[in-house]
Amino acid sequence: MNLFSNSLKAVVVLAATVAIMLSLRAEAVHPSLVTSKADVVEMRKELTKDGRFKQAFIAQKKQVDAQIAQPIEVPVPKDGGGGYTHERHKKNYQLMYNAGMIYQLTQDEKYADYVRDMLFEYAELYPTLDVHPKRKMKSQNPGKFFWQSLNEAVWLVYTIQAYDLIHDSLDAAEIKNIEQNLLKPVALFLSEGQPSTFNKVHNHGTWATAGVGMAGYVMNEPEWVEKALYDLDKSGKGGFLKQLDQLFSPQGYYNEGPYYQRYALMPFVTFAKAIESNDPKRKIYQHRNGVLLKAIDTTIQLSYNGLFFPINDAIKSKGIDTIELVHGVTVAYGLTNDPGFLDIAQQQDQIILTGDGLKVAQALDKNLAKPYKFKSVAFGDGDDGKQGALVVMRTQVGGDQALLFKPAAQGLGHGHFDKLTWQFYDHGNEIVSDYGAARFLNVEAKYGGRYLPENNTYAKHTIAHNTVVVDETTHFDGNVEKGNNNAPTLNFFETNQFGSVSSGEISTAYDDVRLERTMALINLPELESTLALDLFDVVATDKHQLDLPLHYQGQLIDTNFELKANASHLMALGKKNGYQHLWLKGQATPEKGLAKVSWLNENGRFYTQTSLVNGDESFMFTQIGANDPNFNLRNENGFVRRVKGTKQHQFVSVLEPHGEYNPSKEYTLEATSRVTGLELTNNGDLALVKISIAGNTYLVAINKVANKKNKLESELQRKFTYQNKTFSLNGRLAVYVLTNP
Amino acid sequence: MNLFSNSLKAVVVLAATVAIMLSLRAEAVHPSLVTSKADVVEMRKELTKDGRFKQAFIAQKKQVDAQIAQPIEVPVPKDGGGGYTHERHKKNYQLMYNAGMIYQLTQDEKYADYVRDMLFEYAELYPTLDVHPKRKMKSQNPGKFFWQSLNEAVWLVYTIQAYDLIHDSLDAAEIKNIEQNLLKPVALFLSEGQPSTFNKVHNHGTWATAGVGMAGYVMNEPEWVEKALYDLDKSGKGGFLKQLDQLFSPQGYYNEGPYYQRYALMPFVTFAKAIESNDPKRKIYQHRNGVLLKAIDTTIQLSYNGLFFPINDAIKSKGIDTIELVHGVTVAYGLTNDPGFLDIAQQQDQIILTGDGLKVAQALDKNLAKPYKFKSVAFGDGDDGKQGALVVMRTQVGGDQALLFKPAAQGLGHGHFDKLTWQFYDHGNEIVSDYGAARFLNVEAKYGGRYLPENNTYAKHTIAHNTVVVDETTHFDGNVEKGNNNAPTLNFFETNQFGSVSSGEISTAYDDVRLERTMALINLPELESTLALDLFDVVATDKHQLDLPLHYQGQLIDTNFELKANASHLMALGKKNGYQHLWLKGQATPEKGLAKVSWLNENGRFYTQTSLVNGDESFMFTQIGANDPNFNLRNENGFVRRVKGTKQHQFVSVLEPHGEYNPSKEYTLEATSRVTGLELTNNGDLALVKISIAGNTYLVAINKVANKKNKLESELQRKFTYQNKTFSLNGRLAVYVLTNP
Repeated sequence: MNLFSNSLKAVVVLAATVAIMLSLRAEAVHPSLVTSKADVVEMRKELTKDGRFKQAFIAQKKQVDAQIAQPIEVPVPKDGGGGYTHERHKKNYQLMYNAGMIYQLTQDEKYADYVRDMLFEYAELYPTLDVHPKRKMKSQNPGKFFWQSLNEAVWLVYTIQAYDLIHDSLDAAEIKNIEQNLLKPVALFLSEGQPSTFNKVHNHGTWATAGVGMAGYVMNEPEWVEKALYDLDKSGKGGFLKQLDQLFSPQGYYNEGPYYQRYALMPFVTFAKAIESNDPKRKIYQHRNGVLLKAIDTTIQLSYNGLFFPINDAIKSKGIDTIELVHGVTVAYGLTNDPGFLDIAQQQDQIILTGDGLKVAQALDKNLAKPYKFKSVAFGDGDDGKQGALVVMRTQVGGDQALLFKPAAQGLGHGHFDKLTWQFYDHGNEIVSDYGAARFLNVEAKYGGRYLPENNTYAKHTIAHNTVVVDETTHFDGNVEKGNNNAPTLNFFETNQFGSVSSGEISTAYDDVRLERTMALINLPELESTLALDLFDVVATDKHQLDLPLHYQGQLIDTNFELKANASHLMALGKKNGYQHLWLKGQATPEKGLAKVSWLNENGRFYTQTSLVNGDESFMFTQIGANDPNFNLRNENGFVRRVKGTKQHQFVSVLEPHGEYNPSKEYTLEATSRVTGLELTNNGDLALVKISIAGNTYLVAINKVANKKNKLESELQRKFTYQNKTFSLNGRLAVYVLTNP
Repeated sequence: MNLFSNSLKAVVVLAATVAIMLSLRAEAVHPSLVTSKADVVEMRKELTKDGRFKQAFIAQKKQVDAQIAQPIEVPVPKDGGGGYTHERHKKNYQLMYNAGMIYQLTQDEKYADYVRDMLFEYAELYPTLDVHPKRKMKSQNPGKFFWQSLNEAVWLVYTIQAYDLIHDSLDAAEIKNIEQNLLKPVALFLSEGQPSTFNKVHNHGTWATAGVGMAGYVMNEPEWVEKALYDLDKSGKGGFLKQLDQLFSPQGYYNEGPYYQRYALMPFVTFAKAIESNDPKRKIYQHRNGVLLKAIDTTIQLSYNGLFFPINDAIKSKGIDTIELVHGVTVAYGLTNDPGFLDIAQQQDQIILTGDGLKVAQALDKNLAKPYKFKSVAFGDGDDGKQGALVVMRTQVGGDQALLFKPAAQGLGHGHFDKLTWQFYDHGNEIVSDYGAARFLNVEAKYGGRYLPENNTYAKHTIAHNTVVVDETTHFDGNVEKGNNNAPTLNFFETNQFGSVSSGEISTAYDDVRLERTMALINLPELESTLALDLFDVVATDKHQLDLPLHYQGQLIDTNFELKANASHLMALGKKNGYQHLWLKGQATPEKGLAKVSWLNENGRFYTQTSLVNGDESFMFTQIGANDPNFNLRNENGFVRRVKGTKQHQFVSVLEPHGEYNPSKEYTLEATSRVTGLELTNNGDLALVKISIAGNTYLVAINKVANKKNKLESELQRKFTYQNKTFSLNGRLAVYVLTNP
């Protein structure tokens, strides 16, 4: 560790030296951040032709024209988030940036003058300001225009670019006024003035370093760039590069999940582009094996049918068309010319007015897009990629399915207590779902648009997810710190012609309980179908009650066991830890054998979960919405499999998409499950699952041998005997056809 | 009445005479039903070119090729609906028709031979059959291949066309075998053999007359055509023309509503086309001022965003792409060349292989489609168009809105007890909704795919709709016959530049209660918005409890009054008449003034119902799903406004679409209602409603003067005074801007 840290320091010092030399040579060329002077020449040329870029320009110009027809408003800061002065200052920075770009493209001085005049007003206001009156109590990081310095940093990121865009239209006195009274003081306030935020290896820190670093380039303050990159003391302990090293895993996965990943991306993408323009020798895009590009790509990979997988605090309608990812994909295409990114850009349907935006527009005009390839991947979590993983399995056999398996780390304050949970997607829709965040973003009537109280009382709790709850208590007892310190282990992940398989485990979610889950998404090409296999092992020292919920999207169609409904009145399932929010709608204890629950999703497909039970699992059917006096929760359905007073239990099930309900064309196909047999044999390290479905019988073999060094390869090539036949297995997963009709 | 009936008889006799003469001259040209020999020549020619028609042909041929590669199966009838022999015979007639058409287009004998061989098998089987073993007890109309003669008639409609298509490939012995042993006996069984069905003025009768009439054309039995058109006794009391006279209103509205209308259309469209081909002088399409074409067009008009308005027993996903309407639109375009029908055909995206199908395909290939015009219309109900009406109001101001108002007749056995109910649609979605039918079509696990028990215990009841329920009792006490005999009155309907307005009333839904409702869809162009105004007057002899439910689609966002939620346990709202299926989730009694309920639809828009209350209306918030042991019902939300012990009450409210929730782009606009004032003044016949919204104040004037002859025109042009100002009103509806900001 010491050795590594010393050599890192050496690299940092060397890099810093090179950088200063580069910066000293830098000439005052404007613009030169995300969009360069050369880019602008090409962009102007493009405006003589019809095409996507010109269309985007016309739309943007129209919007800017309407806005600059209004008087400039730079109000004295007064309101917190959502209030007038807050929203106005947000609109201002966006407008200055947009107007600056229209100035570059049209060379019409009125746009530059507008930005200049607004900057003048800011330059007049800023020296008069103390920290924001609505700053949060005890907060270490208030802004002046805004209640928190995060917003102030975002303001700087946009405003410094706007300034760069109009710089060459200004005379020396104007430059002096704007830089001395506004931009330099803001940059200093956000760096030297708030070291704890600026140096913090956190997304808030990234906005600050991006703003200050870009200010350094524009106003020829190379020291600021150094500090932005390597911490105020230039040690490399903080700063942009450290953020890039620690906030993403080596595979480019961001600890909080895709919803926050796309948000976190923005300052990284922006500042990196500026670094590349000004200091190409820093090779920022090659840093850490190209982690930034991986982060952009991973954000796309973590989506299904255009929407991000909604793990942790996520608003479910966020997807790949989010503006942050438009910027990310634009830069990624500019870097790689990979036509897969054009596929995404086409879906985003939004051209941005930058040099890379021009490239994307031209390429789309030439129909160069090729289908983006979604893959099955285990995205390692944590800065070392070893704090568990977020696993995505996909298949095209029988549609377009995705299974998300989450032996991932807690994900800080926005993380949910859902170790080893899963989600399933088919034919465009959520089938086995995650609640996401309990929040109506910006809807004042719903708790001011903030996270609802039910986010803490329900959505974050384990029962709100599809994983085991012990004794009605949430993982880590709901303690974030404990969660952050105890990631699950990814035992293995493999994808091959038979499908994908993964296993994860955790022994720290509860004091004396070990949870191990193995999931597989299996291709059955003969049936043009897929199956999701779930083996959940729970082993404890003492006896416990174990609950395994499954939250499904759709209408219950049938159970193959008698279900006693609570028809005439409803009570909550429990008292706390999220249980108080579930109505208990019915219950049953199926006999030993196969217990089936079928539902119909609004995509018109049927889904059946077939569980192998011993007669000791009770099934409780639930609906979200109890103890919800303000009608804040979505009333979704689920069922909870429960075993009481046990030290050990194995939950075994398969999820099977089947059939089609088409009332419009008046046909219904295969509305009943085709699974007729399910048997599990644990043969040492091997889990052997025999599945009979639609007259075919399959043997699924999963090799769970531990991941020991050296030995593993031989352990993964083995032979085994099942029902007097010998099978050979090469890898983690194989599917054998035992009989077909 | 007698006079009319005599002159009708005269026309009938004359027509019959002309028809027989025409028929005697008819030569044996095949095919000559929906598709003529001349059509086939054009269709074959088209197959030499690329285009929609050729594509449709290739797809159809591929399907037929796959099916005729299988052995012919003509099983001995055994199963009821959904069972093997039932489904097989259904597939057979469709396959024979399709294969016959492919024979005509390819002239490849193998297709004709296949149809011939299948007909031989039927000809061998039919003489051995008694009525179907699974015929329904007490049924007057069993089939032989099928359990009911309805299916048998459909079989004949398809099979006679298939036979016509391959006729010229057969030798005399083959013709004799098929006609003598199969087609003629079937036609006789369905006509002479079942006079009560054949003569019945009912959709089932239409299939029978269509099948038998077409058989008459193909097998040169002109008498059959006469009987099909004019009743077995040729009196005109029954038969196809009587069906056309009675089953549709003069505007082409079918009493059971659009869901059954599109189904009923099929035999009308098919037989009419055959009549036009064989007996053009009958001018079938001009019959009753072109009612058949009106019926096709009305079916389209009764849709929103591609789906039929789901009144009565309707499966909600049925829409304009239904195969029956594909045929209807194809024929309608063939008749009219109206490019609006091409717009619909484009949305249907299905070309049928007929002469008219060819015309549609060619026109679409030439991009001749023009937007179909959806209109605001009151579709008169009943054969005279005077048994109430189904009213559709539409506006494009502020989106694409539709309001459906239903002062319509009961609609026979599939009708719901929902006099004067309404529905509202905006931005593509249902906002104020109707449950439709409680049914999962063809899903065996859900009550065999039939109408669920909850269709009778919930969906048909008044409480499941958006209209007044007196004393928790359903309209007409749930008696269909009483409902059929007592239609509401349409007082008026008008559409003009201010919007649309309509009023209806009924005094027979309850013994001593008169229900009168006036609804308006109002354009507010200044706000680029619309409002739905609802004035519901209830007057009774005795004191009653009045409930006015509103079933909304979405998540409750806010109320402007305190709502006491039943947070920890739920009970049903009542014991019977559908009330037992509603959970009571919360309640409130808002103070005198404006009571607001806001919800968010999944289309991302907010909706607020603002009610003018006196402090005597309690609001009960409900969710469907109580006493539903098999989870058959959809758990949708609503609220019921209740007044107790009153002889008279006026429910006054406006529904206001507003704002936008866009968590993807992270903005929320106008999440709160903009209505700040609502006042109603009843000034004689005038209802004057002052509405303050978003700083504007409007006066809406509705002239409710009775529809007396002669006088009406002058009554509709009048002046009135409101708050010391004089206004002039010309018509039923005006909107005046009192103040704007």
